[in-house]
Amino acid sequence: MESSTIFAARKTIEQVEEGAELAPKFDEKGLIPAVTTDYKTGELLMHGYMNAAALAKTIETGQVHYFSRSRQAIWHKGATSGFVQTVRVLLIDDDQDCVWLRVDAAGGASCHVGYRSCFYRSVPFGDQVDTEPTSALELTFTETEKVFDPEEIYPGVPNPTKL
Amino acid sequence: MESSTIFAARKTIEQVEEGAELAPKFDEKGLIPAVTTDYKTGELLMHGYMNAAALAKTIETGQVHYFSRSRQAIWHKGATSGFVQTVRVLLIDDDQDCVWLRVDAAGGASCHVGYRSCFYRSVPFGDQVDTEPTSALELTFTETEKVFDPEEIYPGVPNPTKL
Repeated sequence: MESSTIFAARKTIEQVEEGAELAPKFDEKGLIPAVTTDYKTGELLMHGYMNAAALAKTIETGQVHYFSRSRQAIWHKGATSGFVQTVRVLLIDDDQDCVWLRVDAAGGASCHVGYRSCFYRSVPFGDQVDTEPTSALELTFTETEKVFDPEEIYPGVPNPTKL
Repeated sequence: MESSTIFAARKTIEQVEEGAELAPKFDEKGLIPAVTTDYKTGELLMHGYMNAAALAKTIETGQVHYFSRSRQAIWHKGATSGFVQTVRVLLIDDDQDCVWLRVDAAGGASCHVGYRSCFYRSVPFGDQVDTEPTSALELTFTETEKVFDPEEIYPGVPNPTKL
């Protein structure tokens, strides 16, 4: 499935915002952000990126394909770990520069660190913070147990996190 | 509240992924993506960006402040429209390069086009698409009525959407 066929050229703001043609915008690196939530619970599982080919492949197969910025390659989520994400609903935003994937996540995990969601720590705010803090804010873990051991699931695979 | 005080320097991958220090990563434009969902329904309302000052202001006030890429300025969401977003939970992801805001959205709308969510159109995929499509894919509107009329709420304000 060719992205040049299934994606329309962006011609007018009205077309993009109010029209029914899929006309996604890729940034200067050729990427569009992808927000992935659990279909049943609504939990945010991860935030990734897709290039045109990864979005076309996701549409074609119904399984989520991202573009890995660290490896600069299309990444079929779950190909290594088995934690495949099956699309239930795919949406695009007003100016068509972000997609929302509502998925069933196989194995109940989406995070390479081993947690269910990548968002396993909360940040204090408002009244929870001193008015004149003197050091970095302290995060609270919202998930306390890992679903899997990354060293078992990804043996020898470099950690994708960059400083 | 100074971002230089409340954000730690990023020193090791273990610190960033497994630690309890807030050490957000801003990209080469000084921005971090922000995913905003409705606290009650889990619906994805919008996907925006924050710079360090906007994130610090959000933490300080408990009201969401983004960085507007089109206006290149901090943007207190709702300052013009009244559709303020009040933070209920703020989370950060494994490598601390994305934040998740679970909010109460005043007025029940978050999208400048007038819809409840910015994600008001779905994209067909899998069996819903011809195996050899010959034209751009057709979106389906998932919201059929606007919550507000943008011309009333934003009189004279330029549309932020870029082609």
